[in-house]
This record gives sequence, C-alpha cells and structure tokens, in this order.
Amino acid sequence: MSEHISKQFDAELEGVRTRVLQMGGLVEQQIIKAIEGLSSGDLAHIEQVIEDDHRVNAMELELDEACSRVIAKRQPAAGDLRLIIAVIKTITDLERIGDEAEKIARMAKLVHTAKRSNMPPLELKHVSGLALGMLRKALDTFARLDSTGAAQVVEQDELVDVEFRSILRQLITFMMEDPRTITRSLEVLFVAKALERIGDHSKNMAEYVVYMVEGRDVRHLKAGAATQDPLAG
Amino acid sequence: MSEHISKQFDAELEGVRTRVLQMGGLVEQQIIKAIEGLSSGDLAHIEQVIEDDHRVNAMELELDEACSRVIAKRQPAAGDLRLIIAVIKTITDLERIGDEAEKIARMAKLVHTAKRSNMPPLELKHVSGLALGMLRKALDTFARLDSTGAAQVVEQDELVDVEFRSILRQLITFMMEDPRTITRSLEVLFVAKALERIGDHSKNMAEYVVYMVEGRDVRHLKAGAATQDPLAG
Repeated sequence: MSEHISKQFDAELEGVRTRVLQMGGLVEQQIIKAIEGLSSGDLAHIEQVIEDDHRVNAMELELDEACSRVIAKRQPAAGDLRLIIAVIKTITDLERIGDEAEKIARMAKLVHTAKRSNMPPLELKHVSGLALGMLRKALDTFARLDSTGAAQVVEQDELVDVEFRSILRQLITFMMEDPRTITRSLEVLFVAKALERIGDHSKNMAEYVVYMVEGRDVRHLKAGAATQDPLAG
Repeated sequence: MSEHISKQFDAELEGVRTRVLQMGGLVEQQIIKAIEGLSSGDLAHIEQVIEDDHRVNAMELELDEACSRVIAKRQPAAGDLRLIIAVIKTITDLERIGDEAEKIARMAKLVHTAKRSNMPPLELKHVSGLALGMLRKALDTFARLDSTGAAQVVEQDELVDVEFRSILRQLITFMMEDPRTITRSLEVLFVAKALERIGDHSKNMAEYVVYMVEGRDVRHLKAGAATQDPLAG
C-alpha cells in the first residue's frame, strides 16, 4: 500500500518535471522566434511571440499550483521537497526568460517599423547563441539531474557577460562617431541586455539543479561575479 | 497537545515572517546607501554597500532553509502553505533587489572614480523615491497582510516605468546634443534601469501578498503591461 502511494507520488513528481521541461521548450522557442524576428523583420512572427507570452505565464501559475498540491497531499521527505522547491524557483526564472523574449520581440517590432536607417552595424548572433546555449543546457541538466553539467552552465555565464561588455563598448564607439545612431544603438543595447539577463536566469536555474541533486547550495559562492560593472574593462 | 503543536507552528511561521521583514529592512538600507553614495561620492560608503550584499544573500539561503524545515516538519494546510510559497518567492525578489542596489553602488564607484566631467544634468531623486516607496509599501503590506495596499503597489509600478522612459528620452537628447556625455549617460541609464527593476521586483512581492492573503493569483492579469517598450512614447 505504502509502495502504491509512493509510486503515485513519484508519478506526480515526474509529471511536474515533464511540465517544467515543456515550459522550458516553449520559452526556448520564444527566444528563437524573437531573435529571428529581429533579423528578418517578419512582423507576423514578432507579434506571435508577444501574444504567446501569456502561455508562458499560464504555465508558471499552473506549475505553482501543481507544486502546492503535491506538498499539501503528500508529506514530501527532504530530498523530494528540495526538488519541489527547486521547481518553484526554476519556473519563476523561466517565466522571466519568457518576459525577456517578449522584450526582444517588442524591440524587433520597434526597429522594423521605424526607418531602418542609422542602424549600428552590429551582430547579436554570438551573444544570442551563448544565452540560448545556456538555457538549453540548464534545461538538459534539469532533465538528467546532472549537477556536473549544471556547474558548467554556471561557469558559462561569465562568457555572456564578457560578450555583453564588448557589445556595449562597440555601441559606445558607434554612437560617439555618429550621434544619429544613438536611438537605434540603445535599442540594440536593450536587446543585448535582455540576452545577458537570459544568461543570468539560466545560471540561476543551473544553480537550482545543483541544489536539487546535491542538496548543496552553490548560489552566491562567487560574491559579486554576476554583478560586474558593465562599463568597466 | 495539538493546540501546543499548532502554537509552535504559528511561532515558527511568525519567525519566518519576521526574518523576511529584517531581510527587507537590510535591502532597503542597501538601496538608500547606494543612492546616497551616487550623489555624495563617499567611496567608503559605496564600498560598504558592495561588501554587505553577501549579508542579503546569506539571509536568502537561511530563509529558504527555514521554509523547507517548516514544510518538512509540519504538514501545512493550504493557507499556511500559500504563505510559505509566497515567502520562498518573496525572498528571491528581495535578493535580486539587493543585487540591483549593489549594481547602483558599482556604478556610483565608477562615476566618482572617473573624471566628473561630461555628466548629464539629470536627477534620479524622483525615480529612486518612487522605487523605494514601492519596496517599503510592499514590505509593509506583507507585514500587515494587507492585500488592498498590495494591489496599490502593483498599480504604482506603471509610474516607475513612465519615469524611466522619461529619463531615457532626456538622456538620448543629452547624448545627441553632446556625444562626449555618452559614456556618463549610459552609466546614469544603468542606474535608472536598476531602479526600474527594483520597482518590478516590488510589484512581484506585492502580487505574492495578494496571493498569500486572498489565495487569488493576480500575476499576469495585465498582459504585457510590465514589458512596454522603453523607447516608445
């Protein structure tokens, strides 16, 4: 009997984990579409991202509810409770990544409905590839309960930050050389900032995976590393 | 006996709530000091903010642990569980407000160790007052379980966003008129952005208060309102 209950509980937890991964997949698609929209200028595509954000939000609320139900119905032991708390935190970060994707889409709309003149000649492919790679790997380590891989994701955040600072310096150069590019450059800057934040949120998610698997909290180990001066160095 | 256990449980929950408010008080001080440091240029003061961020981080980890312990030891009913989940979410936002305070302090350091020339003539008092007011009121409504007041905090976020967009437009004007102000203007922009995010996090906290008190989730009710284009209108 107790084995039966335990199996049911395992199935419920597994169901929650699967839905987190589905939410992650949706969020990943949102970023990909927003970035594509930014380079293609396909407005229907861009509008779709903005509209679909409510789906991400709904998944967060549903998963919060599911976690509450599991805790209320069962009395999860320490290990399972860690998993549930990690899920509650993870979906908050996923929802905020969804918000950043929506922001990128709104910037893409702004860029492509305005005149295309005075655009700074700058590519965001590299930084978006890095940020998206971190998100994918964070989700993958969540699925496989792989704390070693998750620790690597935490390390990768520094690469995104370095890339962001490099973009910022290039934009400052463009703006100084030709002040007519200022408005467009700031739009590009906000997109780069959104990508940098996607890296931060993915890092948070990876830290929860380590906590979930090892019961060891790796948050805040490197004081200040995540908050380096964007204008320094 | 069951009354005794219930009293102990209440005391534990009350202890958690008190520590959330202490964490909130510390975070509030961090913002105040960072903003003061930005205008005064008192470097010892500024360094203190950067150093004290680890205290905020430590409080987040301790409170996460405390929440886990309460859930594991007791089997909280729906209402209490809502409170605990709201606390887990609230402390994540408080910790991130702490990060924003640290970012402001780092910008203040950068501004005051660099040459003070080419500063855009712009005051951040109004927007910082608004953001700090939201944080204070969010904490206050958490303390008093005041969902009506919390709903007002959610509304106030729009004021911070409007103010941020106005600052952005002013900075664009300064930069266009005198490109030598570009680097300093971007520093001011990052401080304004940090304040705008403090408003966002305070809004999140207020939404958790409504959820905690009324069991009604008010997150995401206004689709897209929080993610308006910073460069639009």
